[in-house]
Amino acid sequence: MHLMKKFAVIVAGGSGSRMGTDMPKQFLSLQGKPILQRSLEVFANTFPDIHFIVVLPEKYFNEGKLSANNSGISIPASFVSGGATRFESVRNGLAKVEKNSIVFVHDAVRCLVSRDLIERCYYQAVDKGSAIPAIEVKDSLRMVLSGRTEVIDRTKIRSIQTPQTFQSDILLAAFSQPYHESFTDEATVVESYGQAIHLIPGEEHNIKITSPIDLQIAEKILEGN
Amino acid sequence: MHLMKKFAVIVAGGSGSRMGTDMPKQFLSLQGKPILQRSLEVFANTFPDIHFIVVLPEKYFNEGKLSANNSGISIPASFVSGGATRFESVRNGLAKVEKNSIVFVHDAVRCLVSRDLIERCYYQAVDKGSAIPAIEVKDSLRMVLSGRTEVIDRTKIRSIQTPQTFQSDILLAAFSQPYHESFTDEATVVESYGQAIHLIPGEEHNIKITSPIDLQIAEKILEGN
Repeated sequence: MHLMKKFAVIVAGGSGSRMGTDMPKQFLSLQGKPILQRSLEVFANTFPDIHFIVVLPEKYFNEGKLSANNSGISIPASFVSGGATRFESVRNGLAKVEKNSIVFVHDAVRCLVSRDLIERCYYQAVDKGSAIPAIEVKDSLRMVLSGRTEVIDRTKIRSIQTPQTFQSDILLAAFSQPYHESFTDEATVVESYGQAIHLIPGEEHNIKITSPIDLQIAEKILEGN
Repeated sequence: MHLMKKFAVIVAGGSGSRMGTDMPKQFLSLQGKPILQRSLEVFANTFPDIHFIVVLPEKYFNEGKLSANNSGISIPASFVSGGATRFESVRNGLAKVEKNSIVFVHDAVRCLVSRDLIERCYYQAVDKGSAIPAIEVKDSLRMVLSGRTEVIDRTKIRSIQTPQTFQSDILLAAFSQPYHESFTDEATVVESYGQAIHLIPGEEHNIKITSPIDLQIAEKILEGN
């Protein structure tokens, strides 16, 4: 199959409350560069022909545009308002996606994603319809039940990352469904539409930067590269 | 209730294979100090009257004794051989524990545990019989089923840490059971004996140092303190 057109829906909807800062975490500086800018750069370095759709609160459009300008991406990014839920935010972004393309849906705060993972997501989604990065978990896990907890077999559990990557026709069709509270990520929306999803190996360092300690960890990971 | 006698079973049985080094990870240096030594120090700084039982492969007894000597603990530590399973290793260590005491069972590689968490574990175990530190998870989770995966509600999942802390009479009785493959940690052994376990809030930085990236992260966390 020849190369398909590529869209990256970068979800940067957070309000930053968990970070204890006024500025949402996707604009915090990591080694002198905003996290959102880093996310844009790694995708653009992997696929220079990618089209970016950045979903974020309208009041932060200016910061978003600054990050996009400074990232040096070659195709101007689109900016779209976030919604009340992740489903709504992503659906708003998907309005700009074309048929017969590959769509990456990525958390802006996972700026440590590697080019290798983005490439693997692309080729697997071309081949299998979707590619969802997942890693094993190291700690024991328990499920909270009424008044007690129950251990669950951690060898059967996978921790899900982004970019969740799909052929656009599958993703657009799935997002035509009315919202349901079980739609916690794109994979759940696609499954609810009756399509199987396809897990691929994620990366331990592809962390979600949501707390001050994560920011420290991300700095250390960058130093180690 | 007055202060109870305290034992810390420090489980340092790992072979280091995941770390890609010859030296087991519990002896690797973190900012100039072996990980095992750091674990001993934080417990001893919290409770100077604590009795340590270090479980590790016999061929590493010398390294273990070096860590114990350098930690400056006031009561000499006992050294016990690890077994084929975690259950067996901990059971070997429990042979040195006295009745009517509080027992911490701790992964040697979780040397970033805080004094605050150790104290909370102690007082909760005195009060409730057990204290198992647990934190929420940030990523979406899926369960691997035959040929597919299924999303699970991550708000109902807790990631379990150590020190898993118990009144010794409960723990010793539970460990008199014959081994079962469902015994993945001390909490599962105690539950299998018919005793409820009690979760308390863990700490995000109380990580298990098992890979080179964890070592980098641990350095960063220490720098931030």
